[in-house]
Amino acid sequence: MSSVSFSLEATDGLARAGTFRTRHGDMDTPAFMPVGTQASVKGLSPDELRAAGATMILANAYHCYLRPGASIISKAGGLHGFMAWDRPILTDSGGFQIFSLSRLSKVDDEGYHFASHLDGSRHTFTPESVVALQEALGSDVAMALDDLAPAGVDERRAADAAERTLRWAERTLAAKAEARQATFAIVQGSTFEALRRDNARALVALDFQGYAIGGLWVGEPKAEGLRAAAIVCEELPAGKPRYLMGVGTPEDMLAAIAVGVDLFDCVYPTRSARHALALTSNGRLNLRNSRHADDLSPLDERCGCAACAQFTRAYLSHCFRAGEALGPRMVSVHNVAFMTRLAKDARAAVVDKRFAQWRAERERDFTPEDKRAAD
Amino acid sequence: MSSVSFSLEATDGLARAGTFRTRHGDMDTPAFMPVGTQASVKGLSPDELRAAGATMILANAYHCYLRPGASIISKAGGLHGFMAWDRPILTDSGGFQIFSLSRLSKVDDEGYHFASHLDGSRHTFTPESVVALQEALGSDVAMALDDLAPAGVDERRAADAAERTLRWAERTLAAKAEARQATFAIVQGSTFEALRRDNARALVALDFQGYAIGGLWVGEPKAEGLRAAAIVCEELPAGKPRYLMGVGTPEDMLAAIAVGVDLFDCVYPTRSARHALALTSNGRLNLRNSRHADDLSPLDERCGCAACAQFTRAYLSHCFRAGEALGPRMVSVHNVAFMTRLAKDARAAVVDKRFAQWRAERERDFTPEDKRAAD
Repeated sequence: MSSVSFSLEATDGLARAGTFRTRHGDMDTPAFMPVGTQASVKGLSPDELRAAGATMILANAYHCYLRPGASIISKAGGLHGFMAWDRPILTDSGGFQIFSLSRLSKVDDEGYHFASHLDGSRHTFTPESVVALQEALGSDVAMALDDLAPAGVDERRAADAAERTLRWAERTLAAKAEARQATFAIVQGSTFEALRRDNARALVALDFQGYAIGGLWVGEPKAEGLRAAAIVCEELPAGKPRYLMGVGTPEDMLAAIAVGVDLFDCVYPTRSARHALALTSNGRLNLRNSRHADDLSPLDERCGCAACAQFTRAYLSHCFRAGEALGPRMVSVHNVAFMTRLAKDARAAVVDKRFAQWRAERERDFTPEDKRAAD
Repeated sequence: MSSVSFSLEATDGLARAGTFRTRHGDMDTPAFMPVGTQASVKGLSPDELRAAGATMILANAYHCYLRPGASIISKAGGLHGFMAWDRPILTDSGGFQIFSLSRLSKVDDEGYHFASHLDGSRHTFTPESVVALQEALGSDVAMALDDLAPAGVDERRAADAAERTLRWAERTLAAKAEARQATFAIVQGSTFEALRRDNARALVALDFQGYAIGGLWVGEPKAEGLRAAAIVCEELPAGKPRYLMGVGTPEDMLAAIAVGVDLFDCVYPTRSARHALALTSNGRLNLRNSRHADDLSPLDERCGCAACAQFTRAYLSHCFRAGEALGPRMVSVHNVAFMTRLAKDARAAVVDKRFAQWRAERERDFTPEDKRAAD
């Protein structure tokens, strides 16, 4: 019995509009998931996230395991109780975090053997242990443990990672004890078309509740990453959600929606905000640029978020210059609202069968200020 | 015509309960004013400040003058428009900030000649220029420029500062152009009783709309500071508000209410919060203490603030250990709510003629956890 369901409601070319249902509420797709790596979406409260249109958010099992530990989160009623988030939560399994953060990590058929990036302590993650970990965290969607290869590896190395990811996916299903938690498999295979297709087909045969596309946006040329995502989407069943992990900018998200992806997560809107970068319907604004110091307009005239409803560019840029925490916080509110709205607008365009035209208009609007922001 | 009014509604011993009325709303006194030095109460949004019970907040004319400058604030509709605060605002005049922050400052009868703490640029503040500055900032209450002496000076030096403060107060009144802005004078005289009494009487004769007690809590023994505040209160008219500048902790505020003070401001609740210190009805909690890591109770069982309604000590202490900005922010919400509620409860105790008993109970409750927090 699955605790989640997905229905595809419209398509326009390869782009899709659907609904993902969970016991913590429904989410329209395409959807952007803000990232709460350490059980907190950086700088934002649950109220602000809801007001900014966030539905499902992501937390990292790797980080939560190391600090504060699964035990206290479980005692608090899982991540939902611990971080006071009443909407869906997806947890990543840790493969990518070990790959990118941990020192002295080694992968073998058993799993990952790694040193904590916090204190160097030694740990092992297996497909089975991360199932138990994510069940303790109580997320709505758990990710199977995957093995991923860095950008630029040869086909042999990429095939090994994809093959191990497949074997781990089988072990993941065998280890599951909590029927209320959905599990998504992660397709690997780097940028090799045959590997991607084979890995996707084999994982689809295992009948997960959703499929992620992993191991991309890790340094390969962006066109190759997008091509790999498109190839995987061709192999995935229409009736299951498709999640491109760690992506991305507004432009990246639109490009991936165009090839059939439904779900996205990225630290981009909150990390950019901490660097004074605001996403707007006319492109990016760097609030440290002196031209904003006396600009009494909001970040984006077309936005109704808490930042745009209350504050001017002049005030927010003052907060950055003065080191006031309200600056990055309010730009985070705005950037998350921007990304969730962009996904929502994309969905409306798919439903109206005008996605390609809508996307071209959005991208044209982004461009001029991008160039100005570089000055 | 005054834009503010004050009515004294009850007394209990020397403690007072009143109402301070402004064109941005009424404030019950005693009241605690959160500090928004740079036109932002650190970490908090206007919504959070209102929910935490803040009424009048403080901003520093010195800081706003140096960055972002009065011009853009004035264009934005004054501080109220610039920082999106619809309740009263009091601006400090800059004497204390130059005293404590600026380099190479020199005071003479004209005013202060100082170097910016930001970039070393040279500036002069006169009683007249800070009137114009605060009128441009549009605060509800402006403070007259004062000269203050460090703790421990001899009587001659303290007398000079008090005498200059009095002459500057006369010039302040002569310079005022904006009738809608109230002006408070600042009583100086260090810890010398005769100086404090003389300075208070002379300033009272000038008929300001309120009186502040300045130059205390700057390093003198706390008992001497409290005694000086009590002496000044004896000289001040019952029908005007009394403001003890830069004070203080919960215990300091209660002690000063007991001698007749109405208004307080301090960075204490927000600065403490950034250092993981939560104020509770049972004393202070250091959230970096390991004993909070698995404590699923709220910061304060008797508090209904947004932090206590949503989060446990375990979660908030995790945020501090993990460097998540939500930690200091939520503890700031809580600490401001604690201080505003403490002032409100003090008022109710005055109205009920049980202030001394109520204060003794509060102070007894504070004590045990204070000691535990030191472990």
